[in-house]
Amino acid sequence: MNNTERSTVKRLAKRGQYDEETIYNILDKHCLCHVAFSVDGQPFIIPTLFGREGNIIYMHGAIANRMLTHAAQGIELCISVANINALVLARSAFHHSANYESVVLFGKGRLIEDAEEKNHALLVVSEQVLKGRWDETRPPNEKELKATKVVAFTIEEASAKVRAEGVNDDTEDYALDHWAGLLPINTTYGEPIADDRLNEDIDIPNSIKSVL
Amino acid sequence: MNNTERSTVKRLAKRGQYDEETIYNILDKHCLCHVAFSVDGQPFIIPTLFGREGNIIYMHGAIANRMLTHAAQGIELCISVANINALVLARSAFHHSANYESVVLFGKGRLIEDAEEKNHALLVVSEQVLKGRWDETRPPNEKELKATKVVAFTIEEASAKVRAEGVNDDTEDYALDHWAGLLPINTTYGEPIADDRLNEDIDIPNSIKSVL
Repeated sequence: MNNTERSTVKRLAKRGQYDEETIYNILDKHCLCHVAFSVDGQPFIIPTLFGREGNIIYMHGAIANRMLTHAAQGIELCISVANINALVLARSAFHHSANYESVVLFGKGRLIEDAEEKNHALLVVSEQVLKGRWDETRPPNEKELKATKVVAFTIEEASAKVRAEGVNDDTEDYALDHWAGLLPINTTYGEPIADDRLNEDIDIPNSIKSVL
Repeated sequence: MNNTERSTVKRLAKRGQYDEETIYNILDKHCLCHVAFSVDGQPFIIPTLFGREGNIIYMHGAIANRMLTHAAQGIELCISVANINALVLARSAFHHSANYESVVLFGKGRLIEDAEEKNHALLVVSEQVLKGRWDETRPPNEKELKATKVVAFTIEEASAKVRAEGVNDDTEDYALDHWAGLLPINTTYGEPIADDRLNEDIDIPNSIKSVL
């Protein structure tokens, strides 16, 4: 991965990080990304599930999916993964902030046509969404693979931005009587809801047990 | 708000919705959006906090913020707000999905220069992030307002896409012994963490109490 002008964090450069490990760690905690592309100068942005393997981001959708159709043509893409994990509540309105993790990726996509490679890419996405689930399901058949468009995006440049701090108020504001601190935002799995038509002998699978 | 080619949901058109109420309801449940813009054909995407009032999306940042500097020039922007609230775990890998709410907005930004309008825009963002917090803090002074860039984005076109269903498996797959159902994903506030330097007489404020 390189780092040029387009991926350099401009504001609060102290929060910009570019090492692979930081970037991959943030990506691997999530499964939803936003993909931006441009057609005749008009920007578009689409949220989609993804899976990462090495410096490849796999994305999939229906065969006629507009974003994937553009992405498959090898145009420039920009991908973001971002999560807020706490509100930072300062004594002044101005110093309010959020603790977050954010990654921006630059690169291009490539259409995957080979059935075996396609199947592998889908497995990578599935594992990123819920580890172990792939082996608990009926795998895709030939017809389903044909109905699915899969794109492999190669990360050419990347940057990460992280804020993980407490409140930073102006010196004179510490004397104010306003509450200040962090309000954490937690994302957790709830109790699984079995399908109405599920045979009641079937127990909750390991993929779910391991995240509850 | 209009609806043209660029904002028409192509895939799964049955999940595409365009009425203002649906779109505003989804926007108002969130405070993080992704903004895409294009410079010489290169797409960029930046996550940022926002506040909605009518058909205006307010965004703010440091005065030299790159995204806001571009947005302030009135170029085409595309904004997305998306949230996954459940994994849909089917008997087949192919029918796995997610329940989600997603909004895509098209329009252009305008720089806010008037101090009063700027202050109001910041209040709208603050209220969207945590209702009631604005009145619990020291308001921005002149110097802070000057150090802040604020952009008002007008929603010209919008579309919402929602999936809120159970599992849809192929008829023959219902006989399989694979577990199927929904795995909810919940986002909640955790216990507030007071700033180390907080006077211990200061109680948790109403803005926090009302969301816990």
